[in-house]
Order: sequence, then structure tokens, then C-alpha cells
Amino acid sequence: MSYQFLDVTKLRAFCEAIFVKYGFSPEDAAWSTDVLICADLFGIESHGVQRLVRYANALDKGFIDPHAAIKTVMETNINAVLEANRTMGQTTARFAMEKAIEKAKTHRVGIVTVRGSNHFGIAGYYTLMAAKDDLLGLCMTNTEAIAIPTNGKKAMLGTSPLAVCMPADPIPFWFDAATTVVTRGKLEVYRKAGKNLPKGWASDENGQDCMDASRVINNICNKAGGGIFPLGGETEQTGSHKGYGLGIIVELFTSIFSGGTTSPHVQNSGNADTSFCFVAIDYGIFGNKAEIKARFSELLKELRESPCADGCDRVYTHGEKEWKSKAKLLKAGIPVQEKTMNEMIEIAEKLHIKVENYL
Amino acid sequence: MSYQFLDVTKLRAFCEAIFVKYGFSPEDAAWSTDVLICADLFGIESHGVQRLVRYANALDKGFIDPHAAIKTVMETNINAVLEANRTMGQTTARFAMEKAIEKAKTHRVGIVTVRGSNHFGIAGYYTLMAAKDDLLGLCMTNTEAIAIPTNGKKAMLGTSPLAVCMPADPIPFWFDAATTVVTRGKLEVYRKAGKNLPKGWASDENGQDCMDASRVINNICNKAGGGIFPLGGETEQTGSHKGYGLGIIVELFTSIFSGGTTSPHVQNSGNADTSFCFVAIDYGIFGNKAEIKARFSELLKELRESPCADGCDRVYTHGEKEWKSKAKLLKAGIPVQEKTMNEMIEIAEKLHIKVENYL
Repeated sequence: MSYQFLDVTKLRAFCEAIFVKYGFSPEDAAWSTDVLICADLFGIESHGVQRLVRYANALDKGFIDPHAAIKTVMETNINAVLEANRTMGQTTARFAMEKAIEKAKTHRVGIVTVRGSNHFGIAGYYTLMAAKDDLLGLCMTNTEAIAIPTNGKKAMLGTSPLAVCMPADPIPFWFDAATTVVTRGKLEVYRKAGKNLPKGWASDENGQDCMDASRVINNICNKAGGGIFPLGGETEQTGSHKGYGLGIIVELFTSIFSGGTTSPHVQNSGNADTSFCFVAIDYGIFGNKAEIKARFSELLKELRESPCADGCDRVYTHGEKEWKSKAKLLKAGIPVQEKTMNEMIEIAEKLHIKVENYL
Repeated sequence: MSYQFLDVTKLRAFCEAIFVKYGFSPEDAAWSTDVLICADLFGIESHGVQRLVRYANALDKGFIDPHAAIKTVMETNINAVLEANRTMGQTTARFAMEKAIEKAKTHRVGIVTVRGSNHFGIAGYYTLMAAKDDLLGLCMTNTEAIAIPTNGKKAMLGTSPLAVCMPADPIPFWFDAATTVVTRGKLEVYRKAGKNLPKGWASDENGQDCMDASRVINNICNKAGGGIFPLGGETEQTGSHKGYGLGIIVELFTSIFSGGTTSPHVQNSGNADTSFCFVAIDYGIFGNKAEIKARFSELLKELRESPCADGCDRVYTHGEKEWKSKAKLLKAGIPVQEKTMNEMIEIAEKLHIKVENYL
């Protein structure tokens, strides 16, 4: 695959112009762009600008409504339930996490659940908002059913990502992971490269471990059976039931606690119809914040400095690789695949945006 | 291994007598006993009466103090931090979860963290307390370091169990799992049976996958390096970094948020010095409770009725196997290994309890 490196400021302006053309306010356009750029800077290409084409398609088809208003279904001092009415995932998520943060600042904890929205990018973007306010942040989302339950052969749960961000020095602990072995993006990388999937990633339509990426992806697209295994792999022997249970917990906190559509029924009508959960906690309720942060930073340091296995370079803690990638790419520019570049040009032309004015 | 089946009522009375002899009140003795018996009834032998010998040893050595008082370090309307002062884990956990439940009933959510306690049995026992009050229950505990971080070769984190219980029909969703591939108990079962460990469970002192159960267990006991892999196995390819991150999150909510001892330093002095976290949430903050419960029950039913993989009997949801086991063993009696039986007789004799009066 050939990549070209795009200047971050220029790429940002280009994406913002696209969102503005779709009818978003400049502020909302900048926000959604920032979520995508952040993913690219963190080295998470699957959730960066390469996803622009999917948002454009959803906007074209009316699955995302740039003018929809979020409705507050119910609210207490510590929580809210929101109906997103097909809003853009990123702007809705901002609104919801800001609400959770506000509640946490006033009432120590804030839990905001959302139904009826769309894909919101990387879950970890929103937990970082909480951490910037010196709060603990949590975020979950359900997705289209893509994971099979342990012993099953039909995709029933989403990739069920869980993100947690806790302030620490020198960088926060930043955890953002699907509770499946891998995401669909990883399967696509293997398909593009013509490589066999590793054992324990995904199943065929009969629920058997399958190393043929094309077969698995086609089955998922056609809802023909099979899917990705839960974290822990295929069987209980390797802990499959644990990842499967974590997936149910994410589903509980998102679709069930928002009154939204559960993963087995998401996207059946074409709409993403996604549910989220955002949590902010003022960790000062547990003691002196500076002391807590220092003790947690010390634990992370001990982990990083612990002896590494023969053949490995060192032990990492979560967030390190992303912060390092960001520092590098802010200088080097964001690597964009040829295919993504072509898709972006096509979107721009359709919207009568002159690519040469930006990139 | 030969088992004999003991009548539940008799076994209960026997355990209570032991705890009373150690100085616990009849109420506390009955409580700790119930936690052990519940594990046995659920089919979780590793956390049942077979652990009595370990509690007796800790009591003999003064690591557990039956007369210690729990101190409230700090408290708000939604949380508390407790110093357990080497109390019995089970009675402390009861006190803490009851406090979390009380706060959730009054202020919608309750989060109680505890430091300086001892092993409390199955984490899922306490989440069930919340569910019985029609609340969502969560529980976590740190433990002696037994899990190696991804890329590491020194045990730095505990098995970091996470338990979640949510009311549902016909039975609650009851999730209770270490965030490692397996627990130490599983390694011991393989050692006793003289079987090789499956690949992806544990590492040797050099951080390499190791199938020799004795070598792994001896290394753990002697702190000679190696340990159990995080959920997701040995490498990032199978999601090891996800289980490792979950372990850090459990550590954050237990030792860090209670001001307790972190897993790398637990038991270094002989004391267990364990930290816990208990959460209760009034899920009525998210809508009508009956509707939420019905929608969640429907999701679980859909999962159970989803088509199963070739060669499997069916798809389960979490708690099913435990409820079935309990119904069976309440009639059949609790299976107790010969070794456990001998240990119980020895404890009784030391305490001048006549076994024949009970069993």
C-alpha cells in the first residue's frame, strides 16, 4: 500500500470544509474533524480520515442528520438519558461527555447514556476530555453485531469497545479497546494483504475457527453467520466467555441503559442507531487528587520498568504508543493511503470543493 | 480425586462452628460461611470450603484479625473509603457493599473502596447482594501479583477479578471473572492431574509460554519470575494488551482509589493487605426499571437462543451454569475432596471441635 504524508493543518481544513458543506456549523465541523485527526495522530488509521467516506455515505443517505436536535429523555443530578435523533456521533458524544463532566464537577459523578446516534470515532477521544478536566473518564458504545457469543455461530454483539482514561504523569493512562479479539478493520488489513488470519480471531458460518479473511468479511456483510471471537478467543479454555461477558456488559450500559437498539438489531434498517455511555468521576472523592495521581503514576512506572520477556523490547503502559505516534506525526504529517486519498477527492468533487485549495 | 457429598446444612453448621471458635460473632461466622458455601453450590470449588485451610492459617498467623474494627477514612453521599485493619475479607465486604447499596438507594449510586483487608471469596457474592435489592452491582479486588504484563516476565498484577450482576428474568446476569486467562486454581488442577497446561495460559521465568504447571506454580510461589498471562494470552496479536489494561483498571479502582497496597507489593509482609471496590447503581435513573429489566432479559434470551457452533450444545449466558449447579447440589450435597476433608478435620481437632457432631 502506498502512503502520502499530509500536513495536519491542511488536512484539518479540508475535512472541516467537507463537514461544513454537509450542513454542519463550523464549530461542529471542527469538532468531528478533530476526532478523526486525533485517531490518525494516535496511529489508529482505521478510525481516522479513512473513515470519511463512510460518514459521507451515511450523510448522503440521510442516516446521519446534520440538523437534528438531541432530546433529553430524562435527567437527574448525576445522569441523563439522551435521544440523539440520528445526529452525528462525534458532536453528540461531545455534548454527552460535556454533560457528564459538568455533573461530575458538581455532583462527583456523571453518567450520560445516548441512543439513536451514529459511529462516533475512537471512544478514547471522549475519555480524554474528562482527563483534561482532571477527572476519570469512561466510554462505551455498541455497534453493529459482528461478534459471536462463546459457542455461537451468529454475530449477536458489537465489538463493544470500552475506553478508560485516568490522569497520570508523564502521560495519562489511556485504554481504548474492543472487547473482541480484534476489530473488523484488522480483518480488512489481512484481506488486503492477502494473508491468512491468525488462529483464534474469527469464525466461519458454522462457528469454526476460520483463517480466510474474505470468507469471514463476506459472511459478516451478508449476515450469513460467523464473526469475530470475543476477547479470549474461541473456547472457554482460553477465556472466550470472559470477553463475551464484557460485551454483554457494554451492551447493558449502552443500548439497555439508554432505551436504544441492541446490537443484534442495529443497522437492520440501514440507520446506524448506535448507543453510547459516558462516565466522568471526580476521583477526589477517594482522597487527595495529587496523591492518588502520584501513586497511580508510580504503579505505571513500575510496570514499564518491570523486566521484559526474552525477545521483547520492553513493557508498555496504555497510551504510550499513541502519545509517541502523535509527537512523530505532528511533524511528519498524517500518512494517508492512496485509496483513502482517492475517496477524499471523490467526496470533495461531489461537494464542489476544490481539493487543490486545501491539500 | 475422590469426593464425598456433604449435606449443605451440616457443612454450614460445621464451618460456622470453626469461625466462632476463631472469635467471630455467630452472625459474622454465618456470613463468611455463606460466602464459601455459595461458591461451592455455584460449582466454584476453588473458592468454596476447600479454602477454609487458608483462612485458618491466616487467622493462626494473625494476618486476619477477627476483632479488628473497620475505619471510615472518608465519606461523601455517594462514596466511602474504608481502612479494614486486617479484618476478615467476607465480613468487610458485606459491610462495604451494604454501605454502597444504602447510598445507591438514597443517592442513586454508591462506590465504596476498601484497603487493608483479606481474600473475600467470590466477588460475585457481593454483586448478588445489590441485585437482590434490584440494583446493579459491581465488585473488583486486587490480589497478590500473579499476572505478567504483556511483554513482561515478572508478575506485577493480580488476577484482577471483575464481577457484575444485573437483575434479569428468569435469573440475573451474573458475571464473575478474573481478567487473566485463568486463575491459579486452574493451574493447580492441571498440576494435580499431571497434565500439560494449554498453550497461552502462563509463562516461565523468561516470559516464554510454558506448559509445565509445576514450574509455573513453583516460580509464582518463589517469586522467581513468570506468571499467568492476561486475558487475551501471550501477545498483542491475540489481545493480551487488552486483558493487561483491564488488570490495571481493576488495580486503579481497588488499591489506588482506596489508598491501599498495589498488587506488586501485596503479601510481601505476609499480610494479604487486599483492596476492594464495590459499586451499586439504581438503574431506575435510566428509565422504568421493569422495562429495562424486560429489555435486558430479552437480549439474554436472544443470545441463549442464537444458533450454536457445530459441535457445541448451545449458547449460555452468565449465571446459568451457576444457578443450575446450585439447584442440583442443594439436593445432592456439596462435593468435598478427600484432601479438603482431611484439612477440615485437622482444623476442627486443633480447635477442639468434634467433627462427628456436625458431619
